[in-house]
Amino acid sequence: MLNIQISPLAAETFKSFGDVIALRDIPDKIINQGLCGRHHNLARMDFGLNGIAGISLFDAKQRSLPYKLDMMERHPEGSQAFLPMSQNPFLVIVAPDNDGKPGTPMAFKTAPGEGVNYHINTWHGVLTPLFRPGLFAVIDRIGSSQNLEEYWFKTPITISGDAS
Amino acid sequence: MLNIQISPLAAETFKSFGDVIALRDIPDKIINQGLCGRHHNLARMDFGLNGIAGISLFDAKQRSLPYKLDMMERHPEGSQAFLPMSQNPFLVIVAPDNDGKPGTPMAFKTAPGEGVNYHINTWHGVLTPLFRPGLFAVIDRIGSSQNLEEYWFKTPITISGDAS
Repeated sequence: MLNIQISPLAAETFKSFGDVIALRDIPDKIINQGLCGRHHNLARMDFGLNGIAGISLFDAKQRSLPYKLDMMERHPEGSQAFLPMSQNPFLVIVAPDNDGKPGTPMAFKTAPGEGVNYHINTWHGVLTPLFRPGLFAVIDRIGSSQNLEEYWFKTPITISGDAS
Repeated sequence: MLNIQISPLAAETFKSFGDVIALRDIPDKIINQGLCGRHHNLARMDFGLNGIAGISLFDAKQRSLPYKLDMMERHPEGSQAFLPMSQNPFLVIVAPDNDGKPGTPMAFKTAPGEGVNYHINTWHGVLTPLFRPGLFAVIDRIGSSQNLEEYWFKTPITISGDAS
């Protein structure tokens, strides 16, 4: 059984899959009389031809490690951003496309205060919080078409690492 | 000096100013093999004629109560959503429009896990976290025009209540 180790999330490694939504070293703009830093426009979003941007909340159950990855999915008509409404890390799994199927997955753990935005049509695992509450704001496409493709692995893949 | 008491945030009271982004009583859809509830499309967003949706992070200093409100602002070209990346409540101040100026403000405290979306051109106070970290994901208009109107009160208004 394939066993994949979890790495810390890094923007450079992640960039072919999506955006790490995190504070920059220096804010782009200081606002509110010096009391707030604006870190501007951190995600490349796409909502397809007939979709619009929406904010939804995902309330997901905590997962434990090692995690058994049996399915990955992608959204052909839109990007999808996950913003944790807690300071807890979560598990991020992505894969390159390999002829219409996910290639070898990569697994990352976010730092507190980080979110991710999966680019349009990028293979990714479902939302996998490592702590409670598993509450996330999700910015994705609102539209009437299906916008979901799933791929089930014949043999599940083990994702190993340290949650804490 | 005008003194305004903070109330708990309630969707019904808030609806003429914006959306409370919070879990519904029942999720709209159960996804991820039963492990996640999707609470779907919770905000009425608007990005104007020439704007697009963006995700930014705001890193704001903690404020204490009573809070001195000396300025309110509005964005004529877009809605603006604030999603706390912590489980901490924050202070939300809005006002009806009164002939191009803010009327009497109303002040609310969110519950943990709640965000807000100010509708386009709605008078509101700047981001006022009541706890650290004051880290928020902000979904608002990305565009090149100014999109900001400020109103400074001649006499500041006191906002009173209990942060905890």
